[in-house]
Amino acid sequence: MTTGVRRRMGVEERKQQLIGVALELFSHRSPDDVSIDEIAAAAGISRPLVYHYFPGKQSLYEAALRRAADDLAGRFVEPPQGPLGARLLRVMGRFFDFVEDHGPGFAALMRGGPAVGSSTANAMIDEVRQAAYEQILAHLDVTEPSARLELVVRSWVSLAESTALLWLDGRRVPRAELELQLVHDFAALAAVSAAYDTGMAEVLVRILADEPADGPFGELVGRLLALAPPSRLPDQRSS
Amino acid sequence: MTTGVRRRMGVEERKQQLIGVALELFSHRSPDDVSIDEIAAAAGISRPLVYHYFPGKQSLYEAALRRAADDLAGRFVEPPQGPLGARLLRVMGRFFDFVEDHGPGFAALMRGGPAVGSSTANAMIDEVRQAAYEQILAHLDVTEPSARLELVVRSWVSLAESTALLWLDGRRVPRAELELQLVHDFAALAAVSAAYDTGMAEVLVRILADEPADGPFGELVGRLLALAPPSRLPDQRSS
Repeated sequence: MTTGVRRRMGVEERKQQLIGVALELFSHRSPDDVSIDEIAAAAGISRPLVYHYFPGKQSLYEAALRRAADDLAGRFVEPPQGPLGARLLRVMGRFFDFVEDHGPGFAALMRGGPAVGSSTANAMIDEVRQAAYEQILAHLDVTEPSARLELVVRSWVSLAESTALLWLDGRRVPRAELELQLVHDFAALAAVSAAYDTGMAEVLVRILADEPADGPFGELVGRLLALAPPSRLPDQRSS
Repeated sequence: MTTGVRRRMGVEERKQQLIGVALELFSHRSPDDVSIDEIAAAAGISRPLVYHYFPGKQSLYEAALRRAADDLAGRFVEPPQGPLGARLLRVMGRFFDFVEDHGPGFAALMRGGPAVGSSTANAMIDEVRQAAYEQILAHLDVTEPSARLELVVRSWVSLAESTALLWLDGRRVPRAELELQLVHDFAALAAVSAAYDTGMAEVLVRILADEPADGPFGELVGRLLALAPPSRLPDQRSS
């Protein structure tokens, strides 16, 4: 975008530039630690001019959050073809790309804090959670989820958030492992719910029916069976 | 505690009374919606006198949160005897008692908000999470957890929080079912991690070794095996 020649930007273009500069700074440090002075300096404009476009740090922060939220929600979109496990794994890859790109900003936002814990920010977080929830229901081909299915899907979305936050804190487990683990966790949470509820059992059976034996779900079943105490396996019980 | 005779309370006694009154009000409505006037009226004292004991709503709120946090952390303590699944199920019962007693206050705190999202409040939440984490490690008899075990335990703690919050929002699934489900979720998340990691597999095998077939973990394994596609079961594969 840079031509080498200093030129006057339009209002919307300048706003978008400032949002981009802010997001870049937030990807290295918590928004609480980034001043308007730094954003102005990084954008190559004066501090008063930043305030001309955004009346305060909070409004610039919320505009940056808006863009990040739309970006993240966009990454949940996946063509409705092929086995569900593979679809979810691709989404997890894009989710961790986002988390990696926005590390400190993402962590500060999810943990809450003076600059980031506004009700506007919380509403945007809930909006992204809702987008994730609706995407998953669409892929499960469910329009009227039972209370138990809703609970499984929403609690898994929360599990994905907390797993990403824990990963950011030291990155002691490779992210590819966690992406696959979260896909497995989804199946595991669904299976636990299905163990006690016939409606959930129908959903689970439908998910697993299309899964190839070498896909993420199929592989897990084999590995889990290898761990189960021999006395609990059906072939042992009948002897 | 009431004698029918109005008497002068000591400073600490009055503070404790105000905390109790505040917690009672927060158990019906979000702290954001409860005024100092209401707390004063419920305690039978004047508004200026409340400010004499607590310089502002925030300090009374934080004192109430302190008592609630200690109360909750205390409920995690469980004698280190008997099968782990049954121990965890008893803790889940006490956890949901707490969540039920403090409904709106708990929800407001965990969701964050103007009055409740302070860094002091966040620090107390993290302290309770840490207490839960340490209790679980102690029951697993682990002093130096691997990164993967830490991730499983901490992400399960977060899952318990989000499950409780989802339950409060409509209570459409009986809480007893969710208490058992969370115990199963713990085993399921540990099993997923164990499927790909030998260290976690050792922990899982050790957990399951002491579990009776009719305990919460044992029952789950049987029910899950009943759901597994027949083609994936060992006795079918060998035929």
